[in-house]
This record gives sequence, C-alpha cells and structure tokens, in this order.
Amino acid sequence: MFSGPVRPTPGAVSPARPAGLARIDGGFWAERRRVNAEVSLAEGPERLEAAGNLANFRAAALARTGGGAVPPDFAGDFPFQDSDVYKWLEAACWQMADTSDGDPSDGHTPDGHDGHDGRLAAAVDAVVDVIAAAQREDGYLQTYYQLGGREPWTEPRWGHELYCAGHLIQAAVAHHRATGSGRLLAVARRFADHIDSVFGPGKHVDTVCGHPEAETALIELYRTTSERRYLELARYFLDRRGHGSLSAGADRGHGHDPGPEYWQDHTPVRAADEVTGHAVRQLYLLAGAADCAAETGDPGLRAAAERLWRDMVTTKTYLTGGVGSRHDGEAFGDAYELPADRAYTETCAAIASVHFSWRMALLTGEARYSDLVERTLFNGFLAGAGLDGRTWLYVNPLHRRARPHQRPGDQSAHRTPWFRCACCPPNVMRLLAALPHYAATTGGDGLYLHQYATGVFGSDGLTVRVTTDYPWDGTVTVNVEAAPERPRALALRLPAWCPRYTLALNGTALDGAPESGWLRVTRAFAPGDTVRLDLAMEPRLTVAGPRVDAARGCAAIERGPLVYCLEQTDQPGGLDPDDFALDPDAPLTVERRPDLLGGVSTVSAVGRRRAEEEEPDGDGFAADWPYRPLGAGERPLGAGEPPYGAGERPYGERPYGERPYVTTRTSGERVRVTAVPYYAWANRDAGAMRVWLPLTGQGSLTATGRSHGAGALHTGEPGGEQRLQ
Amino acid sequence: MFSGPVRPTPGAVSPARPAGLARIDGGFWAERRRVNAEVSLAEGPERLEAAGNLANFRAAALARTGGGAVPPDFAGDFPFQDSDVYKWLEAACWQMADTSDGDPSDGHTPDGHDGHDGRLAAAVDAVVDVIAAAQREDGYLQTYYQLGGREPWTEPRWGHELYCAGHLIQAAVAHHRATGSGRLLAVARRFADHIDSVFGPGKHVDTVCGHPEAETALIELYRTTSERRYLELARYFLDRRGHGSLSAGADRGHGHDPGPEYWQDHTPVRAADEVTGHAVRQLYLLAGAADCAAETGDPGLRAAAERLWRDMVTTKTYLTGGVGSRHDGEAFGDAYELPADRAYTETCAAIASVHFSWRMALLTGEARYSDLVERTLFNGFLAGAGLDGRTWLYVNPLHRRARPHQRPGDQSAHRTPWFRCACCPPNVMRLLAALPHYAATTGGDGLYLHQYATGVFGSDGLTVRVTTDYPWDGTVTVNVEAAPERPRALALRLPAWCPRYTLALNGTALDGAPESGWLRVTRAFAPGDTVRLDLAMEPRLTVAGPRVDAARGCAAIERGPLVYCLEQTDQPGGLDPDDFALDPDAPLTVERRPDLLGGVSTVSAVGRRRAEEEEPDGDGFAADWPYRPLGAGERPLGAGEPPYGAGERPYGERPYGERPYVTTRTSGERVRVTAVPYYAWANRDAGAMRVWLPLTGQGSLTATGRSHGAGALHTGEPGGEQRLQ
Repeated sequence: MFSGPVRPTPGAVSPARPAGLARIDGGFWAERRRVNAEVSLAEGPERLEAAGNLANFRAAALARTGGGAVPPDFAGDFPFQDSDVYKWLEAACWQMADTSDGDPSDGHTPDGHDGHDGRLAAAVDAVVDVIAAAQREDGYLQTYYQLGGREPWTEPRWGHELYCAGHLIQAAVAHHRATGSGRLLAVARRFADHIDSVFGPGKHVDTVCGHPEAETALIELYRTTSERRYLELARYFLDRRGHGSLSAGADRGHGHDPGPEYWQDHTPVRAADEVTGHAVRQLYLLAGAADCAAETGDPGLRAAAERLWRDMVTTKTYLTGGVGSRHDGEAFGDAYELPADRAYTETCAAIASVHFSWRMALLTGEARYSDLVERTLFNGFLAGAGLDGRTWLYVNPLHRRARPHQRPGDQSAHRTPWFRCACCPPNVMRLLAALPHYAATTGGDGLYLHQYATGVFGSDGLTVRVTTDYPWDGTVTVNVEAAPERPRALALRLPAWCPRYTLALNGTALDGAPESGWLRVTRAFAPGDTVRLDLAMEPRLTVAGPRVDAARGCAAIERGPLVYCLEQTDQPGGLDPDDFALDPDAPLTVERRPDLLGGVSTVSAVGRRRAEEEEPDGDGFAADWPYRPLGAGERPLGAGEPPYGAGERPYGERPYGERPYVTTRTSGERVRVTAVPYYAWANRDAGAMRVWLPLTGQGSLTATGRSHGAGALHTGEPGGEQRLQ
Repeated sequence: MFSGPVRPTPGAVSPARPAGLARIDGGFWAERRRVNAEVSLAEGPERLEAAGNLANFRAAALARTGGGAVPPDFAGDFPFQDSDVYKWLEAACWQMADTSDGDPSDGHTPDGHDGHDGRLAAAVDAVVDVIAAAQREDGYLQTYYQLGGREPWTEPRWGHELYCAGHLIQAAVAHHRATGSGRLLAVARRFADHIDSVFGPGKHVDTVCGHPEAETALIELYRTTSERRYLELARYFLDRRGHGSLSAGADRGHGHDPGPEYWQDHTPVRAADEVTGHAVRQLYLLAGAADCAAETGDPGLRAAAERLWRDMVTTKTYLTGGVGSRHDGEAFGDAYELPADRAYTETCAAIASVHFSWRMALLTGEARYSDLVERTLFNGFLAGAGLDGRTWLYVNPLHRRARPHQRPGDQSAHRTPWFRCACCPPNVMRLLAALPHYAATTGGDGLYLHQYATGVFGSDGLTVRVTTDYPWDGTVTVNVEAAPERPRALALRLPAWCPRYTLALNGTALDGAPESGWLRVTRAFAPGDTVRLDLAMEPRLTVAGPRVDAARGCAAIERGPLVYCLEQTDQPGGLDPDDFALDPDAPLTVERRPDLLGGVSTVSAVGRRRAEEEEPDGDGFAADWPYRPLGAGERPLGAGEPPYGAGERPYGERPYGERPYVTTRTSGERVRVTAVPYYAWANRDAGAMRVWLPLTGQGSLTATGRSHGAGALHTGEPGGEQRLQ
C-alpha cells in the first residue's frame, strides 16, 4: 500500500508512478528528516496552540454544540489559519507512515509506527478529534466563518474556504494512507460533498476560491475514494477560473484588490502562456492542472502545464530554484526580473514548485522535472528551514546587505520561530515528511531513481538499496536486493548540473549516453548486482544569461546540486561580501567540515578585497554622488573644439575629474574567502550574504590592470593592449 | 511681495532666501509650465469633480447645514482625498501669481493675473467657496470624517487628518501670497487653532499624524501670520515623532501595520542616521525639520537634516534623482538597493526630495542641494508628467522590459489620466507652478542662480535677465537689467555634472575656480553688464559605484543635466533594448530633433545587437535553464584525476558542455541606437526602455573577442592574450 502523496489511479495516463517502496534511512536527507520529526513535528502542536489555531477549532465546536455558551472570538488575523493545522497533520501522517526506524524488511506496509514511541500518533489522534468536533452538521468546516457570525461562501476572493478544505482533504488522505483509518477521511468527504452541493453552474455559488489548492486535493480524494464526482469538481474549478468570477465585488465585504492575476483569474489556465501573479497560487493551480491532465488525459491541460513550467524555468526561476521575485503581491515578476537582494522566493513557493514539477515528472516521465526538484530541494526550499528545526525563513533572498539597523518585521533578515502568517513552517514539514516519495518512480520498464538518498526503493519486484553521501560526494551505489526474473530497467537520472560521470555495473564501466537525462541499465537483475554512478563533483562557477540583469558581471559558486554563498561571518577579518571580487582563474578548493553547520563541505575561492574608496576631494555634490563619468578626467579637450570658440579659454577644470572612478580596485588585497551551502545560511548571525559574486575584470572598468582610462570616450588616443576593444 | 513657497522669516538663520523676483518666461521650463497651466491646471477641477473629491466637500457642507437632509457617503477609497483638492488649489494660486504673461517690469507684485483670462481665478474662487462651506464650526475640516459618522482624531496612523490640514494650510498660504486675500487663510487658521487646542502634551491627543506634512505647513503659516504658536506646534510634532505614539492600537480601528518606519515613528528625527520607511513621509518630515531648523536655529535638527540628506544621496538615490526603491511600502530600500526594473521612485517622492533639498539650500547656502534639485527636476520628477499635461506616471522605473501581456493596474507601465490614489498629479502641478521660486536666492552678498532658465531674477536691487537654451545648450547668458551702486556678487552654480566650463564678463574670460560649486563674480554691476557661462555639453557615459549591483557592467548615457534612455520604438528594426550592448569606445553623437517629443536632443550610440541564442541542443533541463557553467566544456579532465580512479573511464560527456555559454555575443550585428531624454519616455507606446546599458566587454565573459574559454577554471592552459587576467 502506497503511503505517500500523489497516487495516480490505474486509469491515469501518467507513464510514471511513485515507487511503492520509498524509504530514506541514511545520509543528508535522513538527518534533515530526523530533525523534522523530532523537533519540528513534535513541537508543532505547541506552536499551533500558542498561535490560537487549535483554540479556534475548539471554539467552533463549542459554537456548534455548546447549548448557548458563548465561544471565544476567532484568534488570529487570517481566515486561512485552519490550514496550518491541516498541513501539520498531513506532515505528521506522512511521518507516521515512514518506516525507516521500523521493520526494514517490510517498509511499505504502513503500521502506524512513527519512531516517537507513539507520541506523534497520539498527537495526531488528538488533533483529529478537535477537527472532527468542529465540523458542522452539513459538512462545512472553517472556524473563521463559524466564529463571529460570518457567513460562509460570501468571500471567494479572500475567504480561503476551498483552500482550507483542500488542506483538510490532503491531511485526510495522508491520514488514511498512513494509518488505514477512515475517520478523518469521513470528515473530509462530508465537507467535499457539501462543497459539491454548493458549487457549480446553476448552484448556490458559481465561482472559484481566491487561492487554488482544492484542485489537487479533490483529485487525491478521487484517487483514494474512487468517487468520480471529486475529479469532476476539480475539473470544474480548473475550468471556471480565468473567466472573471473573482472580479471586483465578488467578495461581499470587498477588501483589497490586487488584480485578477493575483488569484489566477486573469486567463483560463489552458490559455495562459506565462506564469504570473501570486507564485504559490499559480503553482498550486498548475499542480492541480497536472493532476487533472493525468487522470483525464486532457491534452490542453497537459500542454498548458508543460508550456508554463518551461516559461517558469527559462525566465522566472532563481539559481536556487526559488520562484516568485516580488514582495509586492508575493508574485512572479516579469521575465528575467530576478533581483538577488529583493528576491521574495517564498519558502512555500519553492514547495509549490516541487509539487508541480513532481506531478509533471509523473505525467511525462521526463527527467527535466526532477532536475528542477533537486535544485529546489537542496537550495531554495531547504534554506527556508533552520538547521535547528524550529526557526524559519519566509523570504529567501540571494543577497543580504550588511545593515546599520535591523528593520522590524523584516522576514528576510533572520530566522523566526513562527509567523503571524504561518503557512511556510508546516509546509516545510509536510514536504520533508513525504520526501522519500519524491525520489523514485516505476515506469513500464522498471525503476527510476529521480533523487539520490541513502535508502531503499522498489517497485514491481525490483528492490534496490541506495548508498550515497550525496550531495557531498558524487558516488551513488545501487545494490539490487530483490529482482524479478524478467529484464527490467534501472534508470538513474544524470543531474543536469553534472558535466561528467562514470557508470559501472558490478565494477565494469558502461558505455552509453544518457537518453533525455536518464542513464538506463536494462537486464535481468539478480540480488547482489551493483550499479555505481560517479558524478564529477568539482566546484564550479556559474554565470547567468545576459537578460538576467541582477547577475551581470557575476558568478555563483556551485558544487553538485548545491548553490553556495558567502556569509560575512566566515570571511577573513569579517570581510563584507559586498567588498569582494572573485578571481575566476584562481582555483576553488573544497573542504569537508563536519563541525560546521551540521556538517558541510565548504568551497574556498580567491579574489580581491575592494580597496577603500579614496577620500573624496572637496565637499561638493560629486563627493557624495555614487555615479561617475566613465573615464572622467581622461580627456583633455583641444582648444577651439566645438561648441566653444577659441576665444573662450581657459576652461575651468573640475577637481573631481582627476579622481579615478573606482569600480573594483585591483589594488585591493588578495583574499581567500569561504563559501557555505546556501541552504545553511542565516543559521549563525544576521550578517551580509551573497550568492552572485562580482568577478575581477568583469563589471569593472578599472579592474585587472585596465586603468580608468580604458573605455574613455572617443578620445582617439592609442589605448595600447590594455584598452577595452 | 514674495509670491512663492518657503519664505523664511527675517529671524531665520538661513543665509539664503528665495529671490524676491523669479520669473521664467522662455525656454524649456516655460513650455512645460505653459502645458501645466493650460492643460493640467485648467482641467484639474474636472478631474476632481469626476473623482468625487469636490462632491465630498459639498456633502460635508450639507451634513453641517442641511437641516436633516441626508448627505451622500464619502466618495472614494482614501481618507486623504481632500488633499488632492488642496494641492490643485495651491498650484493654481502659484500659477495665478506668475506674471510671465503679465507686466514684465513689475513681476514681483501679485496682481491676480493668471494668463487664463480670469478662468483660473474663477475656478479658484469656486473651490475656496466649496472648502469654506464644509468647515465645521470648531474649525475641523476633513470630509472623510465629517461624512459617514466617523470620529475625528481616532486614527492617527491612517486618518491623514494633519496631513490634509497641512495641505489646506499650504494652499491657504499660496492663496494669500498670490491674491492678497485672507479668505482661505482664515479657514486654515481656524483649523490650525483647532488642532492647537486638541494636540499636545496633556491635551486631548498627544501623538502625531501617520503622514508628515503639517510640520512644513504650520511653519509656513507662522511665516505668513507671525503667530509663533504655529511654529511651536510644528516643533511639537517634530519632537513627538519617533517615540512610539503610532504603535499598534494607536488607531481605534487598527488597520494594516506596515511597521514604525513606514510612518517615521521608529526613531526621533534628531537621532536618525538613515533615510528609511515610506519615502514621501520621510522627506516631508525632513523638509519640516529643515524649516524648523531655519526658524529656530536648532543645531540638532540641522545636523540630522544634513546627515540624512547625505545618506540619501550617497546610498539611496537613483541616477535620475528618484528615490524610494521599494514597491512594498513605497519605501526607501537598503543602502545601494537601487533596482532599475522595480524602481518605485514615486513621482511624489521626487517632489518631496526637491522640497527637502531646496530647504537645505536655503538653510546652508550650499550649491550641492541644488545639484540634486536640478537632477531630480529634469529626470525623476519630470518623467512623472506626460508631455500632454494630462497623463501621469506614479512609478518611475529605469528599466521596462518588453512584456507579452500588460498587467492590469501596473502603474509603471504606461501613463494614466488619473489615479485612484491621485497624490502625484496635483503635486506635479504645484511644483511646476512654483518652479521659478526654486531657481534663485539672495544671500548677504548678492544674487545666486541655482537653476538655469530663461527669465528674470532679482533681489535687493540687482535684477538680471537670463537667456538660455538649457538643457539642450550649455550657454547661459546673464544680462544685468538693474543694479545697486555698491558691489554685489552674482553667483552661478557650476553643475556637478559639468567637467569643463568657461565664464566670461562682457566678453572677457574670467579665471577663477568655483568655491563649493559657486562661480562668483563680484563687482558694482551696471545695467548692460553680461556674464556668460558656457558649460561643456558633450554627451557622456556614466557608471555606478561598485555597490550598486543593479548597474554593474553598464553605463548610462547623460548629457548636461539629462539622463537618457533607449526606448524600443526609436531603435532600428524595433530592437529590444535588452538585446543591445553598448560599445564604450564608439562616439556618441547629438542631434537636435525639434519634431520629436516636443523638441529634444537625441544621443545616438553604437554597439552590438545580441546574437540570437543558439538552438539548444537536446531537450533536457539544461536547454531551458538560464544559468550555465563558466567556461563549460573547456576543460578536458585528465585520466585518473581525483576524485575518480583510473579504472573508471570512460567518462560520459554532457552534450551541453560543448555549447559555449553566450553572454554578449560579439557576433551580433553592429547597430546604432538612439537615446531620448528619460523624462520623455513612455509618451508614445508601452515598449521596452532601458537607462543602464550593458557595455560590450563588460559583464560579459564572451564579448569583445574573449572566447568562452576565457575565465575557465584553473585549467593551467595558456590562455594567450585574450585571456582575462
């Protein structure tokens, strides 16, 4: 019995299905998942109690059954707070289904073992009780509307009712798959049936929710219950959106109007050719579109999902896999609008990207989707979770400047124990808890390994143990533990970042090119067979395309799937990373540091410290102004040169013309800096950080021996070898 | 009688005062002011009627005197809408005081002549009637609170009551100075007296307004009425701010809380060392601080104003003079956070910067402040006003990408006839109407010309006529029309952008260095004396400091005080400016184009069209991913090189490793592009625009003959002359 998210039905068109057996029991992700289980998930109920989320359910139950007792008001600022509870619950259920501490020989049978001596199971039971007690007789359940006399289904734009219902459904599906219990599933079905009775053409409400989420959830409910109405309802929501049903006045109480793109109501998803608007809303919607395409074979939905995924990857994704450039509206920006400093790149958007990409991997069987999943997991996603499992980033910039003062409420500044809008932490928890199920698929011909982690993966009789120290080391050893007698393929994704590799079977090198990103070994495997993949893991410098203005003249350090960054705290003399220029010809060196940040490999690089600006001469405007003429002072003007007559000499001369304009001074001291994985940043202090590092000789008019005279304007002077060409 | 804004009292410590005579009657600004008077101001009442602002006043009058008739609800979304009316009124009054079409021999006597056959005066009278009728008996006046049963002084954070009062006061001062009438002044005084009775330690309210503005206004009221209480009230507001009186709960109705910096309540202005928070709020507050320092001699306020002005100029100002980088909160960003594409740079913030800088110029007598005023006026400010006088930009980015779709409500995209939040248009109108009064001052020793415009300027008996075609031409001719017998200084600001100049008196070149930006000619002038300043006006390339990440590897075209930009519509074959790299060694050429954009000088430059990206090979992830290894495919790895053993050959090779990574291709066609002044952009279509232009050979690893092999990582290969050093 499969106990993870996203389970296509037998009738789905998807060529790939999640592997029935998927367990991570060692290495990088096992440690992150251990912290997730032992700290984040274990402390979740406390957080939800402190923030008032659970009290809202109890108050709603009291409102329903209290016989006149006055329940307290809704606690908190946001209508969608129930979803925090549902997401924690979903995460806890996936964790309970995890058998990495349990019986390794029978890992794919859910047995309720949670590695917590039953404490997590007890917490789950208690939360399920609280939720079930709050549900209205007619199936409706959202504490924000049940408390304070608010009327349901009157605020489709801001109410988040279907969004919350979606998370309830996903939690219920997880609860069912993990424990076999139908208790929460019954609650979810009653709500889904209520929604089905209310929503639709000619029914009480004919619109969608301002925040997509119900679409994927209803399809998962369909997959779990075989009740086709849920699939039809999801399809209705997918098709209804984009026709203006959320335009001004849709909410009875009105409220702020960020425009139709915000809630993905600007165009039907089938017609869209650009990812836009609120990033999480966009990607949850597309995850639903991919699920629907899988279950219905709808070619228009599939084409839209492929087109929009490609648009996202080509023009709107950060090096870290993070998406959603804008603070304003938590939105995708224009194509190539990818600022490092003001990258919003919400943690939830990275998670949504993984959700969407994984569904596309299943729908198409293509490796490219898991290339993005890998990059996102190791960088843009993981940065959102503190190493301690109890602090979080909501916003994940690629550049943080040193600041004289901390701005209160700046969520990009440092890790926070919880948020007023706490969507991200439980979302991280559920992805980490479900992570093994994103690692492997079964296709018609065999087992596909999408992500590399130590553990056991298998399907259709082919079971393998993977052993790897990835991402620190590039060796992935795959031992066959069980195999059917017939020939099967064992396919390993060759990561897109990897320039060279070797593949060997039982010690003999295999010669063969990857096919669309897959290295396939097909044979009648026998237990004991070993496939070994070695990926070249030298650190590398990566540059951005010319339209990515924010990274011009810079390179980023990467190694394997990891993006690196300079944190001020690691640099000699507390060097501000903004004062550093990287020498692209100096070697990068790797050091394994078990003591640092939970155990990382650092990469050190060499470059120049930017020399102090020279003292400004004079006290005029130019001394303060941060812009300078290119090649100022380099060009004595000939007498009588237009537009001046010969009689008008002498010219006064500006003193600042004699001051060379310093961009990146080669006179700066040569320094060695140390880069750490981006995912681990902001776990020590709130100092400066950079991913994109200016290169010496790039983006600089005075660097590497080219004097400030280089680039002078139409001087006609011989510039010599050092002149720019 | 001085008929402009900002009139220090005789007791003020300011070394400079606005020149008593200041009239612009020809050239660049005269034309912009003509459009302002004939179109923008003339159509203002229509706009205010259509948006409901004037109806709100009539409704408030009805509520006050209607004897039970039910007035309509407040029309519009914002409590501060009365201020739109006040700002238009202030602008109309300054325009009425303008005598450029009237009696040139006696320009400094306000005579109510407005160049509109009295139509503007009639419109002013009508609006004054509407305002006066709405005022409550106790002096209170804000239609948002007078309508709909809202209670005054309960929402200091969002209510904008003192903000609106401030604009009323400024309109009243303008009305009085322009017409001599005390009618609106009486309304303003009654409101100011009411405020004085309500606000203060131990009084009904002991806090400030969420939006500074009353401070400058009350000081102008003091200057006009000599009533010291108004100065004291302004000082109270300045000192009360920054002590948390606007913290959570200050508004009875609560509302959104963007944090204390937003309303400048995070720190007392005297203690601040960084401009931060909402840009307009910050700069209106600092304008008030400068006024207060002028009138009280308070050294702490002056030091804070100087410090914060310098912080702004050094770290948070765009090349255009625009300020306020962030959409989110319309706020200053961190130091050097100056994105071109997402520059918010609200038109009102540019105006606020001029207000603040002008007050600093008066307070200190220093030229630097007027350097910033000039840059801001010609670029960041003027871009906000459409050439037609009836369309506007609220947001003024320095880069606009071509977009497949227009985003609804995107205020940075195209010019708009009016805004739901219409603060900018009437603010532009009042600055243009008052513009002559920002051009000249009188110091103890003579007349100082801060800005160059054709017109008449004078003070203390020294009157000059300035003739210039600035900013298209660098010649400024100053003819003395009247002079006292004693020696006086005639001081001309040498613009900070200017590398060379000549100065001549009656045809004889003068030799002498500028002192702190001033070129002073001191003598007993006689009528007929002519001082001629010639400023070198070759176009130039300007680069940004190394911390300005958003401009790395780029240069901007400037000429004189003007920043230039590439608009797609002007380029050969509709070249997208994002596909262009500028050759810094190719000459820039200037062409006067009377036919274009109301008459501009264009600057043409030469560079390379970026070559089309090569066809991606294969269909994998790397084909879409916009990031590439630096020097990918350049480095054959030796057999047995760690971390691989000798037995593990052959390596598989990635096909994309053979594809050079293109940053700026030198194979691109050589093209000549045409730049137009930034202020004139977005007056034709909504195509792409850039100010910062990537340079060939900069920010590019493959440009100017350096192959993609340059910069390859620790290869040990000889790179030859083309290698980066």
